Amino acid sequence: MTEYSTGIGTSDLTSISLLGHDITSLLGTVTFGELAFWLVAKRRPTKGEGRVFEAVLVSLADHGFTPTAIAARLTYYSAPDSIQGAVAAGLLGGGSRFLGVTENTGLYLDAIVLGLGDTSGYTDEQWDDVARAALLQAKSEGARVPGLGHPVHKTGDPRTPVIMRIAEEEGTLGPHLRLFAAIGRMQQEVLGKNLPLNGAGVAGAALADLGLPVAMLRGFALLARTAGLLGHIAEEQVTPIGPDVYYSVDRNAVYVPPQGE
Amino acid sequence: MTEYSTGIGTSDLTSISLLGHDITSLLGTVTFGELAFWLVAKRRPTKGEGRVFEAVLVSLADHGFTPTAIAARLTYYSAPDSIQGAVAAGLLGGGSRFLGVTENTGLYLDAIVLGLGDTSGYTDEQWDDVARAALLQAKSEGARVPGLGHPVHKTGDPRTPVIMRIAEEEGTLGPHLRLFAAIGRMQQEVLGKNLPLNGAGVAGAALADLGLPVAMLRGFALLARTAGLLGHIAEEQVTPIGPDVYYSVDRNAVYVPPQGE
Amino acid sequence: MTEYSTGIGTSDLTSISLLGHDITSLLGTVTFGELAFWLVAKRRPTKGEGRVFEAVLVSLADHGFTPTAIAARLTYYSAPDSIQGAVAAGLLGGGSRFLGVTENTGLYLDAIVLGLGDTSGYTDEQWDDVARAALLQAKSEGARVPGLGHPVHKTGDPRTPVIMRIAEEEGTLGPHLRLFAAIGRMQQEVLGKNLPLNGAGVAGAALADLGLPVAMLRGFALLARTAGLLGHIAEEQVTPIGPDVYYSVDRNAVYVPPQGE
Amino acid sequence: MTEYSTGIGTSDLTSISLLGHDITSLLGTVTFGELAFWLVAKRRPTKGEGRVFEAVLVSLADHGFTPTAIAARLTYYSAPDSIQGAVAAGLLGGGSRFLGVTENTGLYLDAIVLGLGDTSGYTDEQWDDVARAALLQAKSEGARVPGLGHPVHKTGDPRTPVIMRIAEEEGTLGPHLRLFAAIGRMQQEVLGKNLPLNGAGVAGAALADLGLPVAMLRGFALLARTAGLLGHIAEEQVTPIGPDVYYSVDRNAVYVPPQGE
Repeated sequence: MTEYSTGIGTSDLTSISLLGHDITSLLGTVTFGELAFWLVAKRRPTKGEGRVFEAVLVSLADHGFTPTAIAARLTYYSAPDSIQGAVAAGLLGGGSRFLGVTENTGLYLDAIVLGLGDTSGYTDEQWDDVARAALLQAKSEGARVPGLGHPVHKTGDPRTPVIMRIAEEEGTLGPHLRLFAAIGRMQQEVLGKNLPLNGAGVAGAALADLGLPVAMLRGFALLARTAGLLGHIAEEQVTPIGPDVYYSVDRNAVYVPPQGE
Repeated sequence: MTEYSTGIGTSDLTSISLLGHDITSLLGTVTFGELAFWLVAKRRPTKGEGRVFEAVLVSLADHGFTPTAIAARLTYYSAPDSIQGAVAAGLLGGGSRFLGVTENTGLYLDAIVLGLGDTSGYTDEQWDDVARAALLQAKSEGARVPGLGHPVHKTGDPRTPVIMRIAEEEGTLGPHLRLFAAIGRMQQEVLGKNLPLNGAGVAGAALADLGLPVAMLRGFALLARTAGLLGHIAEEQVTPIGPDVYYSVDRNAVYVPPQGE
Repeated sequence: MTEYSTGIGTSDLTSISLLGHDITSLLGTVTFGELAFWLVAKRRPTKGEGRVFEAVLVSLADHGFTPTAIAARLTYYSAPDSIQGAVAAGLLGGGSRFLGVTENTGLYLDAIVLGLGDTSGYTDEQWDDVARAALLQAKSEGARVPGLGHPVHKTGDPRTPVIMRIAEEEGTLGPHLRLFAAIGRMQQEVLGKNLPLNGAGVAGAALADLGLPVAMLRGFALLARTAGLLGHIAEEQVTPIGPDVYYSVDRNAVYVPPQGE
Repeated sequence: MTEYSTGIGTSDLTSISLLGHDITSLLGTVTFGELAFWLVAKRRPTKGEGRVFEAVLVSLADHGFTPTAIAARLTYYSAPDSIQGAVAAGLLGGGSRFLGVTENTGLYLDAIVLGLGDTSGYTDEQWDDVARAALLQAKSEGARVPGLGHPVHKTGDPRTPVIMRIAEEEGTLGPHLRLFAAIGRMQQEVLGKNLPLNGAGVAGAALADLGLPVAMLRGFALLARTAGLLGHIAEEQVTPIGPDVYYSVDRNAVYVPPQGE
């Protein structure tokens, strides 16, 4: 008989165990953010790790009328009986173009960090050297360095220094954030134009420094975005924009039928 | 020109405003759970409200190998390049049969409470009368009262008294939870068998007592479940069950082709 | 050991059986539309049934820039690496408000037809009586009769008479379409304004007359819509509108932050 | 004012235009499969192209209890009120591991064919040379050649020769199918073990030879799969397996809680 192993939870007639703890001991003592960390990392975050993690989730929760928020609102408008469908439609835009920056930055930094060995004694100058080499390599390959630049915050993303500071306060500022900061110091010199560190990128670096699996970074961005989508759907219930978006596109449609048969 | 109103957030060159606050003042000071409350309710929860809300989210985050967790794991197995698809697939099972209990209980209690007017001075005996009448009506109509009974916790769901206690500690125990508790006291006498208050139901009652819009209750269950799904997907990356579920079904398939042409 | 029964298909080392037939005998001889009918009805459609069924699918495939098409295009724009996510997002709008008309009309007509017993000898006058009674009942209950009215085709949906004619040509015009036609004749007199039979409604009636399970009618609308969504996604790859929809909403956003703390 | 261009369709008070044709002229004369081709290619298929296209869709429609079919059934079991959610969940598994073979094979062959220039006069021997070189290159890079091998049909996929034959009958056998056939002849000699051409791969080659955009090949596989998913959902309504899959996993779960705090 096939067995299915899990470390998440189990239950019997009178109790529920979650991650090895009686759930009644977790209710009211663990925040939802801490539990999300715990579920993925399979270890309970320290208070400091929890604070950094929650700050990152808060920083990623919403970005206004993104394409994914609009898609969720249009889906809610079309099928108001199925909130799960509207949330799912919003999350399905969580791919490479927008939401992927967090994951891509984490993966990019992690690959470099893993190749360095022990970096615990690195000075800022050493990190600057690592960053310069990485930027030069990307430049020579015509590759984009993830986490750089923002369409609105062209002179600097306000979230970046705050996440850095909180990680430092809580003692979780590790090689990923230090390398990312060095990339921020070096990027203009190497790339020739100013592309400041963006908030999605610093989120990825901060999560990687918490020891969370980099293969799950997009998942945390999705969790954060779920809260933002709930805000949009709740707003759509009261002051909808879905109908106006639809009418605006429909009224300004120009039909150019295919030529030929 | 059509305008699109939102109260969630905006940004300019140097700043991001979220719910009327500079995001840099929220990072590290608001938990992710508190922000989720705030995004939907459009008001910041008090510390006590935040604690109740987080406890409810924690209580709903996971239920082991539910059909939705299995669907998410199978989807991850089929399309590991698209975590958003696996999360979305898991959430799409958040409909009437399982995840709906939280919403249904909240809606059910809210309809009764709204019909009562001012209940601030109600005694437990008065709530018992309300509960008895509601149960009798449901019985006479052959309708199910949502939030009663659990396939495993037949003698009582361990989450129920803890959520009740935390709401009481934080001063958010209001008419929905008081009515739900009364239904718990009356149900066996009226319905003739013991169907204790389940955890999904008490979650709905507690969220309704926080003043959150009942039309969004399913949304909070989805948010909680997103964290659980991340746990399952992270586990699937390391100790997968998807292939074994697939082989188990495939190997035990019995083909009964349709008769006739 | 649990067994899992299916009548759809099976395979072994050298052969694939689909619906009781060797798949090699179906390739090139059965159209995709006929196979879709067969998969759900578990019987092969006659040539005439197949023609009606394909006509209905063609009639439902696209409706221009619907909210669901826009949602799919925005999702493709956000996550171009995951076409399945864009298609899924488009289908998730297939709920009560737009796509549900086909299903709702079929269910509505079917409930009435089932209550009539043998209607094989009914004259148009008898159907008119049934329709009048049904419309009067809906009017007295303040209920909407599904399948009536269209925001654009206010004087008549061009698809309706064509589907009726094809069903008649192929001998599949049965009680659902006859009752629907009678509702079309009676609606203005009973309801007091002209609400012609719409194309989504006649599709539901035609599918029900083919003997397809009414619980699956929304599914056929989803299948038809999938082809339309592929057209939109293919167009989005070449002449995208997603970015412009996003910018248009974003540029015209008006931020009204919540008041108070 | 932003304008949104489309060639798919438009409508006014009395008419609907689809792809430049009055929809009333298409109903009953174009099959659903032909319309799907037309919507993506923006040209009407010939009768022969239509027959090949429909054969490919039929060949891809179902594969029994695949992970995606099981995910769709579990989602339907959890949320039976939302068929669109079950279909979407099933499609979301249409990623790299299973459904991607059609797209990957088409892309792989297309890249080689595009590099060859005019191949209209190529003999089988010339194609064999191209195939041998491609296989050798893949072997030296340790890369997998898509479209080779099948877990069940180890000695040959029964769909492959039939799709080849139909394409030849209809005059659409072009460079993609000819190269794929050559890979089939050469693979064992170069790779050292027999990995016959599978049905998903031949589907990709046949679609590419029809001149359909290779960036949309995964989309056609999704369309085909949608019909299969409707079959599974219809079956789930009558003879469900979802509950048994769930119970089987749940009953055989082994809880191994994480160690440490």
